[in-house]
Amino acid sequence: MEFKISKELIQELEQLILSKNDLQLGVLLNDLHHADIAEILDELDFDEATYIFKVLDSEKTAEILLELEDDLREKILSRLSPKEIAEELDELETNDAADIIAELSQSKKQEVISELLDVEHAKDIVDLLRYKEDTAGGIMHKELVKVYENWNVLTCIKEMRIQAENISRVHSIYVVDEEDRLLGRLSLKDLLTTSAKTPISEVYIKKLNSVRVDAEDVEVARIMQKYDLEAIPVIDELGRLVGRITIDDIVDVIKDEADQDYQLAAGITQDVEAGDSILELTKARLPWLLIGMVIEIIASFVLKSNESAFQKYSTLIIFVPLLSATAGNIGVQASAIVVQGLANGSLKEFSRDYFSKEIAVAMISGTIISLMLLGYHTFMYGQFKVGLAISISMVVVILFAATLGTLVPLFLNKNKIDPAIATGPFVSTTNDVFGIILYFWIAQMILGF
Amino acid sequence: MEFKISKELIQELEQLILSKNDLQLGVLLNDLHHADIAEILDELDFDEATYIFKVLDSEKTAEILLELEDDLREKILSRLSPKEIAEELDELETNDAADIIAELSQSKKQEVISELLDVEHAKDIVDLLRYKEDTAGGIMHKELVKVYENWNVLTCIKEMRIQAENISRVHSIYVVDEEDRLLGRLSLKDLLTTSAKTPISEVYIKKLNSVRVDAEDVEVARIMQKYDLEAIPVIDELGRLVGRITIDDIVDVIKDEADQDYQLAAGITQDVEAGDSILELTKARLPWLLIGMVIEIIASFVLKSNESAFQKYSTLIIFVPLLSATAGNIGVQASAIVVQGLANGSLKEFSRDYFSKEIAVAMISGTIISLMLLGYHTFMYGQFKVGLAISISMVVVILFAATLGTLVPLFLNKNKIDPAIATGPFVSTTNDVFGIILYFWIAQMILGF
Repeated sequence: MEFKISKELIQELEQLILSKNDLQLGVLLNDLHHADIAEILDELDFDEATYIFKVLDSEKTAEILLELEDDLREKILSRLSPKEIAEELDELETNDAADIIAELSQSKKQEVISELLDVEHAKDIVDLLRYKEDTAGGIMHKELVKVYENWNVLTCIKEMRIQAENISRVHSIYVVDEEDRLLGRLSLKDLLTTSAKTPISEVYIKKLNSVRVDAEDVEVARIMQKYDLEAIPVIDELGRLVGRITIDDIVDVIKDEADQDYQLAAGITQDVEAGDSILELTKARLPWLLIGMVIEIIASFVLKSNESAFQKYSTLIIFVPLLSATAGNIGVQASAIVVQGLANGSLKEFSRDYFSKEIAVAMISGTIISLMLLGYHTFMYGQFKVGLAISISMVVVILFAATLGTLVPLFLNKNKIDPAIATGPFVSTTNDVFGIILYFWIAQMILGF
Repeated sequence: MEFKISKELIQELEQLILSKNDLQLGVLLNDLHHADIAEILDELDFDEATYIFKVLDSEKTAEILLELEDDLREKILSRLSPKEIAEELDELETNDAADIIAELSQSKKQEVISELLDVEHAKDIVDLLRYKEDTAGGIMHKELVKVYENWNVLTCIKEMRIQAENISRVHSIYVVDEEDRLLGRLSLKDLLTTSAKTPISEVYIKKLNSVRVDAEDVEVARIMQKYDLEAIPVIDELGRLVGRITIDDIVDVIKDEADQDYQLAAGITQDVEAGDSILELTKARLPWLLIGMVIEIIASFVLKSNESAFQKYSTLIIFVPLLSATAGNIGVQASAIVVQGLANGSLKEFSRDYFSKEIAVAMISGTIISLMLLGYHTFMYGQFKVGLAISISMVVVILFAATLGTLVPLFLNKNKIDPAIATGPFVSTTNDVFGIILYFWIAQMILGF
């Protein structure tokens, strides 16, 4: 059912490119979906990809451009003249076109815009460029179907046919007043079942969710998911209808957000992927490694200053890795649950109920782990009192890590920092160090070294 | 624009429940969206929530049921008779109804099904219960609009009006043959612009993506995203149209998948959230803590057997936390990039190119970190040779961790295990232990203890 790239296909294409057999290339590729062609181009080398790109017509290549990996798109765009880029953009929906323009250099941007043929389209694109990427304005389309409340169903259907020409999915028909202020909506289904002369003002639905153009994209995603919407109109400060966001745009927002959280949790600062360059990958990863290093330097001080203690009680030092790993793990677990709670709205701020629950979980886990450790230590090394000191420290460290793990993401969130950072290396190494400090401190109190 | 729960509203509702003022409760709540009412019920205590639930009519409560948090839904369902539950389910779409039935006990399931009034609806629901949760069959709806190829546009519009009654979003009209085998689709827009007598066979689009009923849900999500689809028809082994999946179902699949990856990365085995009980939270978290503990016990052996070495070269031991943290961090980073590459399809299997790149990143990061460490050690503690041993070990450990971090998720993926486990505590603690073993082994070779 679904297209699959084969080695044979790639080889055949390479042969055809070599022999400049444009006709056969067209036959092979024109029936494929643009997303599949993009996948093929990603597999070919750059010159081959560019060759194919120039063979296909702009209706197809415009869509392909959107699906390519960033690197290849950038390279191909660099080979096209402003006029050629403008031809591609004329085929695209406004927000897709705006996204591509936004990637261009400032000077090329202007040239491309001045080459756009469709003036209305160009105006819409320029309009969209004004909005910040992560706002409703940054993800909305200009394409939508709108009708005036003083029309009747017949005028409406006629006008709609014209407007819908350029729109792949109609979803809702928005009803506005003479000032373009959003009043409500009509569904296609309603139009099909209402008599032609009925005035729109009598049939439209007045209740309608909308978002302001400056709303955050993740907020829009939350609202659309909560109310199960497939499209939401976007209004400006004066309540005028300026655009529309559809659920497929939101799918991207949700995925990006999830990817970013996952990357933060893994200690990767920038949005990188397997295809990026060594330099980009290093730049995204080295900072967290260095931060971890600096924090763990503190741990080396703590160990150094407790040297005499673990020379006397040698088992004290050998359980340090176990202690830090456990502290790190429980801290990250605690943070992850808070981060997801904040994301899905089930946690909003510090809650005494939730905190008590977390402490109870940590207490139970800590007790089980410590008793096992005490048993193991006594069995292996005798020295019950040392084992007891280690085990009690363990419980305290676990409680501390759970507390830090719960509070840090709440604190970050309150200060408008992405709380997912708390599940990354920064907090787990911090937990490490505090854990080691607490460990020796408690051991010292019990063993009196 | 959007509804916000206020303390005043909650207090007012509690007052009205106390004085059994059902009329006023209805006035306050009937205008709210079911997702908002669900949010309110989650804030109230169980008896109050049940009271409100019984005051509202079943058209509304059925939708509310879907939006409630799992715990509250389970409790409320336990208070309802099979007949009452069946009344709720009669209001719901087939897959939502099937999801709720699936949560009931085996005996209650049968009773509820036998109480369903609409026989067709009941048949569809029972049909859906056969499919596994994480397949196309498990997430599809039975609700769809289908027409036969031998109809004309007029019959089609008439039939559609009847079928569309029960469907909130039409998207596509599917065209089938007499055996119900899927042939293609019609868009609403096409219907609006074609003359009434045209036979369907002349206007429908034959090219159409579809998925088999046993396809994995994440695979369906991938296809729908790749081809930017808002709905996809589901066919059985014989090519017969059996259901439809819409993009809002896919949003849930994507979110669940992302949440699960994030939780695995944080060392949480089951799908838990902030609202779950202490027992559930502990059950999801303790296993990974214990696994981490067992692995770190190995580290304690390694340290124990190298006791004499770090009694001689004391700085050897104090950098162990730094070494393990760095190994853990770089391993998790490496795994996270592979996991995301596998998820978005940019990595499919072991790739020499990608692996070389990862090793280069690790080599650069490792060299920078080791040189800094060597400088620091020499400055703080003198003993250049010991510092050199520590630094060289560090580079090797980092390379090893990057290798393990890259290979483990690829291996897991090949063996059909979720590769996100690799970014969790299991691999980072394993990296810890291997790191410590390598560290002392290399130090021994250089320092000769």
